[in-house]
Amino acid sequence: MLVVMDAAATAEQIETVVRHIERLGLRAHPIPGAHRTAIGVTGSQALKDPLVVENFPGVKEVIQVTQPYKLVSREAKPDNTVVSVGGVDVGGNGVIVVGGPCAVESLDQTRTIAEAIKRSGGQLFRGGAYKPRTSPYSFQGLGEPGLEILARVGDEFDLPIVTEAIDHQSLQLVDQYADCIQIGARNMQNFALLKSAGRARKPVLLKRGMSATLEELLLSAEYIMSEGNYNVILCERGVRTFSDHTRNTLDLSVVPAIKRKSHLPILVDPSHGTGKRNKVLPMSRAAIAVGADGVLIEVHHKPEEALSDGPQAILPEAFEQLVREVEAIAQVLGRTLQPALAAR
Amino acid sequence: MLVVMDAAATAEQIETVVRHIERLGLRAHPIPGAHRTAIGVTGSQALKDPLVVENFPGVKEVIQVTQPYKLVSREAKPDNTVVSVGGVDVGGNGVIVVGGPCAVESLDQTRTIAEAIKRSGGQLFRGGAYKPRTSPYSFQGLGEPGLEILARVGDEFDLPIVTEAIDHQSLQLVDQYADCIQIGARNMQNFALLKSAGRARKPVLLKRGMSATLEELLLSAEYIMSEGNYNVILCERGVRTFSDHTRNTLDLSVVPAIKRKSHLPILVDPSHGTGKRNKVLPMSRAAIAVGADGVLIEVHHKPEEALSDGPQAILPEAFEQLVREVEAIAQVLGRTLQPALAAR
Amino acid sequence: MLVVMDAAATAEQIETVVRHIERLGLRAHPIPGAHRTAIGVTGSQALKDPLVVENFPGVKEVIQVTQPYKLVSREAKPDNTVVSVGGVDVGGNGVIVVGGPCAVESLDQTRTIAEAIKRSGGQLFRGGAYKPRTSPYSFQGLGEPGLEILARVGDEFDLPIVTEAIDHQSLQLVDQYADCIQIGARNMQNFALLKSAGRARKPVLLKRGMSATLEELLLSAEYIMSEGNYNVILCERGVRTFSDHTRNTLDLSVVPAIKRKSHLPILVDPSHGTGKRNKVLPMSRAAIAVGADGVLIEVHHKPEEALSDGPQAILPEAFEQLVREVEAIAQVLGRTLQPALAAR
Amino acid sequence: MLVVMDAAATAEQIETVVRHIERLGLRAHPIPGAHRTAIGVTGSQALKDPLVVENFPGVKEVIQVTQPYKLVSREAKPDNTVVSVGGVDVGGNGVIVVGGPCAVESLDQTRTIAEAIKRSGGQLFRGGAYKPRTSPYSFQGLGEPGLEILARVGDEFDLPIVTEAIDHQSLQLVDQYADCIQIGARNMQNFALLKSAGRARKPVLLKRGMSATLEELLLSAEYIMSEGNYNVILCERGVRTFSDHTRNTLDLSVVPAIKRKSHLPILVDPSHGTGKRNKVLPMSRAAIAVGADGVLIEVHHKPEEALSDGPQAILPEAFEQLVREVEAIAQVLGRTLQPALAAR
Repeated sequence: MLVVMDAAATAEQIETVVRHIERLGLRAHPIPGAHRTAIGVTGSQALKDPLVVENFPGVKEVIQVTQPYKLVSREAKPDNTVVSVGGVDVGGNGVIVVGGPCAVESLDQTRTIAEAIKRSGGQLFRGGAYKPRTSPYSFQGLGEPGLEILARVGDEFDLPIVTEAIDHQSLQLVDQYADCIQIGARNMQNFALLKSAGRARKPVLLKRGMSATLEELLLSAEYIMSEGNYNVILCERGVRTFSDHTRNTLDLSVVPAIKRKSHLPILVDPSHGTGKRNKVLPMSRAAIAVGADGVLIEVHHKPEEALSDGPQAILPEAFEQLVREVEAIAQVLGRTLQPALAAR
Repeated sequence: MLVVMDAAATAEQIETVVRHIERLGLRAHPIPGAHRTAIGVTGSQALKDPLVVENFPGVKEVIQVTQPYKLVSREAKPDNTVVSVGGVDVGGNGVIVVGGPCAVESLDQTRTIAEAIKRSGGQLFRGGAYKPRTSPYSFQGLGEPGLEILARVGDEFDLPIVTEAIDHQSLQLVDQYADCIQIGARNMQNFALLKSAGRARKPVLLKRGMSATLEELLLSAEYIMSEGNYNVILCERGVRTFSDHTRNTLDLSVVPAIKRKSHLPILVDPSHGTGKRNKVLPMSRAAIAVGADGVLIEVHHKPEEALSDGPQAILPEAFEQLVREVEAIAQVLGRTLQPALAAR
Repeated sequence: MLVVMDAAATAEQIETVVRHIERLGLRAHPIPGAHRTAIGVTGSQALKDPLVVENFPGVKEVIQVTQPYKLVSREAKPDNTVVSVGGVDVGGNGVIVVGGPCAVESLDQTRTIAEAIKRSGGQLFRGGAYKPRTSPYSFQGLGEPGLEILARVGDEFDLPIVTEAIDHQSLQLVDQYADCIQIGARNMQNFALLKSAGRARKPVLLKRGMSATLEELLLSAEYIMSEGNYNVILCERGVRTFSDHTRNTLDLSVVPAIKRKSHLPILVDPSHGTGKRNKVLPMSRAAIAVGADGVLIEVHHKPEEALSDGPQAILPEAFEQLVREVEAIAQVLGRTLQPALAAR
Repeated sequence: MLVVMDAAATAEQIETVVRHIERLGLRAHPIPGAHRTAIGVTGSQALKDPLVVENFPGVKEVIQVTQPYKLVSREAKPDNTVVSVGGVDVGGNGVIVVGGPCAVESLDQTRTIAEAIKRSGGQLFRGGAYKPRTSPYSFQGLGEPGLEILARVGDEFDLPIVTEAIDHQSLQLVDQYADCIQIGARNMQNFALLKSAGRARKPVLLKRGMSATLEELLLSAEYIMSEGNYNVILCERGVRTFSDHTRNTLDLSVVPAIKRKSHLPILVDPSHGTGKRNKVLPMSRAAIAVGADGVLIEVHHKPEEALSDGPQAILPEAFEQLVREVEAIAQVLGRTLQPALAAR
């Protein structure tokens, strides 16, 4: 931390700040300059709340230096983390494609789509049994019967299941039925839910919130890891901006930024990230090209009848093409398409 | 809803869209134009997901017309809703000032601040026992002992209590100890929590999320009301933008916008909305001037020692000045300062 | 400037950075910490481009400390600047109301509106002869004949004129015909135009760009002042965000922020800032309540026939009410309504 | 255009709106619905300002349907436009890589970098002689001597030149010395400059403004084309958002969006789009993967000594690798690397 003093700060004001910092058990290093003095702060701990000295007389501003996250940091763990989702490695050299409908609607629908995902080379299956919807009058998901469908279909096609939990209760059930617990963008800072996920047995797929900074995303991952669950997969799904040609603005530069700061795997969801079916293939190629460990894709065999998010779901045939394109781009980067689980 | 067809759409394509709409039980009204045809859609129900026809051949785009919220709407209820929080009216002609620390730290701290709030003319007391913090290593609040302190202090000074709930369990406790349940910005779309709040007995103060549109805020209020709790107070607390001179950008124009669309009361929180102590007074005046029903203010007698959000808390003396300025501005609008509860 | 080294930076890497800084004629102050070393940089000059050391081996990040603007700064000039626009003081204790149509359409229209502005107590008249329009097919303004109309009407009603210049040529004409040169939001970083304005004789009203930070706004003012024109008035007119209930998001907290950092006057334009007629009055009250030196209001006697921006123009009767409300709010702050020029 | 009436609108109010529309020479098509009436508007012309009826009694809102741009539209010209920049095709099957320093600093510097660009397979050379800088105290470019250096070096290495114009005067000179006139992001809505560019002989590279929507970008291109210069190349260079891990947020989804709406070529500038050297390669791969017609890259042989934007310039060796990676990604999409001009 660096405390910058006013140009007109008196020696007494500087001394008061220094003494306050030292009283907190930290070390203060005054750096006199031509125009003003700055005070470097070091020690084993940051201030409880670093800005409290900002209001001392003579203080111009306080600048944070050290990063507030620890377990997610690549400084803490230089090697990439590879998370196993039901036997499929996420975050290794192989890139993955997760496919499935936005919402589980029926056994037939789920099985039809899962069969197409498997046949096309998708390694994981996604589909929501609990749907966080903006309106209380929209379809909210099938709940536990949806989880049963997912488990049965995942078992039938050897496709590990990723599905969302929206509260403590649904998280217990997802942890039991599925292979990976998704925390959605709207819950990225639902810290009670993050702590529950940190105590679950299954890996967690954590989606970036609509207005979350990189640091906030990493701190939310830190919440999960600090409870003991180290199997966290991050996911970029678009942020909210003024830009209105897509539903969200997919921030692909976050992928190399995360790779520098953290050892955790990072996926990209171009379906929610654009909200437009015709953008899903190009943005999937771009996601792999920028270095993502995989993509999360909404697929529906009858999107015009889907109970939620129909306009962004692609058809099974488009999914097949997407997997081929993802594989071709991965090869340019010296990566492969991660093999799907073999039938048992 | 309006379906806009491509300039080159064929009569067959138009007919297909019309038939699809009618098969859904709606009425389709084709409007032929010079360059293209549009199809108006009416009926007792919107499409389950209005965009599904967007992918039909020949369709250019689909435009939503009707609003998706009902109970919060001023069309549904033309008169202002006045919510009683422990006997203090919110949303009537009198404006209110809610004061208190960001977090409850101790009985002494809470009592000292409450005494100042009451003496200065504040009508409600705020303070967090459950704190949603970005980092897992920051102070997370005292929990139930904090609620006990709040209840005791509120009782002592006849100050009804507003305090935040962060999950189903804490909500049950807040409903029991406090007079108003706050749902924080990060949980504005935690729909499970909104439903729990909708089944609580106490009124709910719902803060706008950091990147929530007006419509999303109203739909989150609709979640609470659709469960039967009609006592909802909205709160603007700043949105996230590129603008970096304040922590958030306080969007005051949302106040008259909400007054047009909804009958619910709306408060403004300039403490979180700016994150800067020296902006709290001017933005409080502006909030009342624009038509808000009151303000929510962080107050601490020793902000440099506060366990959270110190830099935005004002001192008790500044709070006293704030109440006087709020009252003076309210009078310009023909409103009054709502009287505080008399001691029993 | 502060250079923060990696935790793993070697002594050689630190020494290389120190030597590089000193070679640039600056002083480097290494501050060893528990986990990493930081290097404070002082001297009479900042680095030409402060980030160049960011790419040195072992450097984690570079943090700016000193502000890049000088003439606009309140540190440079503690007292408020009062700018005289044709004899009307802007930035003193009296607040001002500038009114007029978006565009000058005819002598009749301009005279009708000016008469209403004067009668209602407005002190300055605004109206565009050069209109920067998003589409090339929209009305682009009357040009020099429009300036002639403005000058004639301003003279007739003793209303000094504020009008926009859009390039070097129009700026020469505006400088000749009008009392204040407006630089619009879209040209806030048209640096060639700013320099021209810096060489003009008349004061300049500089509008904040749609995505300009506070610092960028002040630096654009610095461009004007550094050419010798010290009569600059700033204007907040809304920034672009995701928030869609108004056309822009009026960022009122920038007013007290500017008052702290700069001595220049600051106005607010709620007409463009909201784009909605029904938000103009409440946001004008809020602008004065937060401490602005005045407001800029679009007025049209037949807004449904206006050639541009009709939906945000208010009627003359509403303008009269607005002036009264602005005055009443100003009095709460111990300010007055600035008197209009007396007829000669 | 669609006019949506209030639920409570009277037959008279609807009739008034219909008559007003027809008086403007348009056709009004009332569509009665269960809850409210909407009025479709068609005709050879949109309303001058479509929102004027928004303020009629009984009108709830007005929705735009037809797009306001014409010449840039793919409806107007279904085939891709291929722009020749000094003999190099932009927008055809071959993708291009434009390289060069942010600013021309000297003949030596420019020649050294140009030699590297040519050797690595770059087809066009970029470099600024006129630099729009946020601060008046930053290096503003060499001006005409810089253009002379560019022309000489371009000639020597058979590298057509792209360079920025910042006002009418510099545009005349750029049109004379260079092969393509760049309009920078800050001038995207400097309409006077756009009109000048529309009368120039050379093609124009138009960068998206920091907060420009897709429609605004296309309308700015329309300004240029409506003056008769049809050789316009668009360029995405990042938009301003809250996201702070890069300097701007590169909005790659705009590439397929533009390809759908317009026939113009589109490049991506990952150097300004991220502001971080280590993001330039991954984002260049992503840009080509998403379908861009090429990338614009800042290259400097001594970035730590660059007079502007050093931290985002890559070294010549990295540029060589970038060209190879761009070519490999292009091949996955069935495209090629456009050949550079042969030496004459």
